Amino acid sequence: MQAVHNIAEICAQMGITDVVLSPGSRCAPLTIAFARHPRIRVRTVPDERAAAFIGLGLAQTQRRAVALVCTSGTAGLNYAPAVAEAYFQQIPLVVFTADRPPEWIDQLDGQTIRQTDLYGAHAKGTFTFPVDTAHADAKWHSERIVTEAINIAQQFPAGPVQVNIPLREPFYPKEEVHFEKVKVIREEAPVLMLAAAELETIRQTLRQMPRTLVVAGQYHHDEALLLALREFAAAYQVPVVGDVISNLHLPVGASFDVRNVPLGRQDVFMAVPEPGLKAALRPELLITFGQSLISKALKLYLRDSAPQEHWHIQPAGAVADTFRSLTRVIRMEPATFFTALLRPDSQDVTEPALATDFSKRSSMSSAEPLVAAADATRVAAAPVPIGSPRLTWPTAGWALGEEEAKQKAAFLTPWQRAEGWAKGFLNEFFSAKDQPFNEFSAFRKALEFVPDRAALHLANSMVVRYANIIGLPAGRAIEVFANRGTSGIDGCTSTAVGSALANPDRPVVLLTGDVAFFYDRNAFWHNYLALNLRVVLFNNHGGGIFRMIDGPRQQPELEEFFETRQTLTAENTARDFGLNYFTARSFAELESVLPVFFAPGNSQSGAALLEITTDSATNADFFEHYRALVRSSFA
Amino acid sequence: MQAVHNIAEICAQMGITDVVLSPGSRCAPLTIAFARHPRIRVRTVPDERAAAFIGLGLAQTQRRAVALVCTSGTAGLNYAPAVAEAYFQQIPLVVFTADRPPEWIDQLDGQTIRQTDLYGAHAKGTFTFPVDTAHADAKWHSERIVTEAINIAQQFPAGPVQVNIPLREPFYPKEEVHFEKVKVIREEAPVLMLAAAELETIRQTLRQMPRTLVVAGQYHHDEALLLALREFAAAYQVPVVGDVISNLHLPVGASFDVRNVPLGRQDVFMAVPEPGLKAALRPELLITFGQSLISKALKLYLRDSAPQEHWHIQPAGAVADTFRSLTRVIRMEPATFFTALLRPDSQDVTEPALATDFSKRSSMSSAEPLVAAADATRVAAAPVPIGSPRLTWPTAGWALGEEEAKQKAAFLTPWQRAEGWAKGFLNEFFSAKDQPFNEFSAFRKALEFVPDRAALHLANSMVVRYANIIGLPAGRAIEVFANRGTSGIDGCTSTAVGSALANPDRPVVLLTGDVAFFYDRNAFWHNYLALNLRVVLFNNHGGGIFRMIDGPRQQPELEEFFETRQTLTAENTARDFGLNYFTARSFAELESVLPVFFAPGNSQSGAALLEITTDSATNADFFEHYRALVRSSFA
Repeated sequence: MQAVHNIAEICAQMGITDVVLSPGSRCAPLTIAFARHPRIRVRTVPDERAAAFIGLGLAQTQRRAVALVCTSGTAGLNYAPAVAEAYFQQIPLVVFTADRPPEWIDQLDGQTIRQTDLYGAHAKGTFTFPVDTAHADAKWHSERIVTEAINIAQQFPAGPVQVNIPLREPFYPKEEVHFEKVKVIREEAPVLMLAAAELETIRQTLRQMPRTLVVAGQYHHDEALLLALREFAAAYQVPVVGDVISNLHLPVGASFDVRNVPLGRQDVFMAVPEPGLKAALRPELLITFGQSLISKALKLYLRDSAPQEHWHIQPAGAVADTFRSLTRVIRMEPATFFTALLRPDSQDVTEPALATDFSKRSSMSSAEPLVAAADATRVAAAPVPIGSPRLTWPTAGWALGEEEAKQKAAFLTPWQRAEGWAKGFLNEFFSAKDQPFNEFSAFRKALEFVPDRAALHLANSMVVRYANIIGLPAGRAIEVFANRGTSGIDGCTSTAVGSALANPDRPVVLLTGDVAFFYDRNAFWHNYLALNLRVVLFNNHGGGIFRMIDGPRQQPELEEFFETRQTLTAENTARDFGLNYFTARSFAELESVLPVFFAPGNSQSGAALLEITTDSATNADFFEHYRALVRSSFA
Repeated sequence: MQAVHNIAEICAQMGITDVVLSPGSRCAPLTIAFARHPRIRVRTVPDERAAAFIGLGLAQTQRRAVALVCTSGTAGLNYAPAVAEAYFQQIPLVVFTADRPPEWIDQLDGQTIRQTDLYGAHAKGTFTFPVDTAHADAKWHSERIVTEAINIAQQFPAGPVQVNIPLREPFYPKEEVHFEKVKVIREEAPVLMLAAAELETIRQTLRQMPRTLVVAGQYHHDEALLLALREFAAAYQVPVVGDVISNLHLPVGASFDVRNVPLGRQDVFMAVPEPGLKAALRPELLITFGQSLISKALKLYLRDSAPQEHWHIQPAGAVADTFRSLTRVIRMEPATFFTALLRPDSQDVTEPALATDFSKRSSMSSAEPLVAAADATRVAAAPVPIGSPRLTWPTAGWALGEEEAKQKAAFLTPWQRAEGWAKGFLNEFFSAKDQPFNEFSAFRKALEFVPDRAALHLANSMVVRYANIIGLPAGRAIEVFANRGTSGIDGCTSTAVGSALANPDRPVVLLTGDVAFFYDRNAFWHNYLALNLRVVLFNNHGGGIFRMIDGPRQQPELEEFFETRQTLTAENTARDFGLNYFTARSFAELESVLPVFFAPGNSQSGAALLEITTDSATNADFFEHYRALVRSSFA
């Protein structure tokens, strides 16, 4: 059993600190090993579906691998939704599934399924732990595959890995459990850099291409990228567009100049059916990084506009041709790429000047050091605390020529104007009097109260769309998370719970709809209620999205088979799990409850839930009114 | 879209009447097709994990395929636990997963995963619906694969099949939906019969082998089998042993002679550490049929006793060597096999005399006809209503010789004595005064009130074990179901809910523990509350089983990481879902509430939940007391 106990030691040596366990008999040796390891924290969550999403939330926040442990049988299949989300959201999970030994598979023993390669196309790797580890070769093999699994999970693009562990009885140690010193294989991620000549060509292209657009998909908070991107946008006069999940809105260091925040109101201005506007915004060179876009309007527009060139910046892995225009894949970290385009003199493949550069900058900070660029290429790198480095806003190291600048402005200005118009439109729209109480407006009010430094989780499906239309309140450091790898509703709450457990000193806010919320109520069914968690539940008693989209709205099946009315309120759930419960059913109630619910300094006083009840038909009418107004208001 | 709409027509033509749907946008064409088909009943359940188990419960009860429909993304992965259970419990499910068209896979579109072969080793088949069906060949292909999928799902051993359906927009029909007459392929299951000479050899062997034991694993209620097996046991003087999930305890027709019910107290007498008893019970020829055993004591005993011959009766499919003694696989229906051994004159491979024979018998009935033997080989055959055929107990067609009978008795008698002793022991044990209020005793009291003609669902993990120890109340027709394919706790409630929906005129009772119950609360989260459902919840606030088994009990991690204390009661859940709520915390409360809770004639008055709260440590002590007494009491 020593080889099994050593799994905990290997995990600890390789930087795994958190394990989410679901109780079982077959996994007992793993349970005991992890529970007794001094450097590992184990939490136990009975529903494996919730457990896996809680693990995903921990890993997403901590930006390093988390281990899951479950017993044999369907336990591991309940992980499958979170494993798929981790695969597409690129979150490192190391899944240890206890199993019967191979001779007892398909022999009608209880809790026995076919666990080899349980996650198919949604795992980065799958390993089978040796069933007998008495032979020295087998023991080495057992140690090696655990090491490899953790490395594979953390390599870019990060993702889930399964280690299936067949276990024979006895499961319980007769003597005291100890951990051997085990050899591990540490993998160092390289700094990826183009050759100097190639970079110079790109710089020249960028200077000369007047219609260059940068679009970010989903991306984690990356201080180095934010800095580089703002500097890049200023130097090359290029519009940069990000969704709310791109986390480009975050402040850089202490400097939060709202004027320098990338554009984000594309869901509004792209909905305007104005051929002149569309033509003015059309890019010739599109540069993208990150993962999926929320904005369907922008996505369809870019597909339609067919830029001559589309470059995607991604260090490794398969690249999606989301806009059907992809022509070039650049294998670099986005932060490194944009920085390299700003530092003509310091670039060399053999000497990662960026790392030095960033180290110098971080020495300017009296708080936590900035993550070094070399580490920035590692998914497992520690996250940069929001707002901690105190950097001055950098000046662009060079300037465009006059003609270049003029051409650039001809493209940048329409984008900036569209953004400005959209912001003005939204402000005016939401300040209109005599609105009926509705979800869209209530959502905007709630969003305004999300506290500074919060980790904000946006559930699928309408919530994340509302947030992307409205945008975050200006000047606030709010890091945004959403399960947009697969865009499922199945684990949004559990993911936020995992995030709250990983961030005990920071407010963690989940905005969610009723279907996502009740689907995943088992997120709370354990003994680790996170005091810093605030859940705002928009309850319209059904899948309100189906009333919002053309198609189902016109079908006789709308209510029964699309919207699927559900009658629950969250009151009993709040009572079951000890969440402080607040409600709002009108603007007046909402305005009086929000300051209390989100009161600063109140974040340790207990997890709380605010249920905002709206009427689905009113919501649909109001949202339709919004859409009609967007379409007709552009000037 | 006509090809997609025709899926509903094909399902209807092939006998599928029930569809469980989970709402989504991508699956809209399927939703509309099934919702509008006049011969199909669609129910919509938002949590796909619960939806799939509800579908499994419907299929398990109706003994014909049920279709599941979900949208793209992780929706289908939430089906995986139920799909695995269906695979190992051999229940036909046809899973339609809506998908993006292939060109948009891995292109960062929302709700897009890799859905091809989503269930890996746990599906009997996987099909991809053509994305373009304009070409006549493609349309024929689309119809053929749906037909094939349904046939494969229903072929013995039945199981789940996936049909992945890539769909391009638009999803909504512009004109009225109609269904074309589509050609389907009907598959007829054969009557499987050994050659007459081979059967005669088996008959002679059985007459001459004095130590022959029949053991049944999990098996559905099969009236023809019950009749044949009792007749066979009497004619050959062979002990027949079944677990509670073997459904051998059920009455045959109107005749319920308790003396003729197969043995079932093996969990008690096999726990006796008496070498003399073990030797007396040792079989030389073991004949088995059905799926898994609950009784670990019997399983270990049979592995240890190593009979010279072990024959397993199973029409097709891979056969498990559960006792490590398997020497022969006989490819027949168990009912056909045992009947054939009783009818020496009428057997012929070319002329299935059994069918005639059974037809004759069924003509004796004035109620519903018995299922014909030819149909009995089809999993899709309609279930035989319990107790409906009015048959007289058949006389054995022949007699053993005196010496044969004497030898047989020398083996049969110890088995019957052990059974008799165990029953007496249990009666005495449970009538002891001054018992603390505990789960095991409370379970027995609850079991006594399960009404006649009930469908009884036993949840994993302690509940099904208790039931197998105690046995069902004598003389009552209670059909037993349990998810013993994978023995998971993840869908026990949903399966019972599906069963209740399929059996509106019959009481459906679920006995369950708190971990299984709260795990699967979304079983009730839909608009189809079954009035005939009675849930008895044994709440000991944790995984009580871990206190009952050696190993975890001795570990310091017991409470936190094995038992995993959970504090919920079901009161709020009952309130949320409109279940009539009853409680009991003492024997006195239990005795007064049980008659009300299970009141006959009350089965349509609304779904109800009885929560029996016990103390986990007391339960463990009491169960240990039981085990000690069993070990020391045998005489």
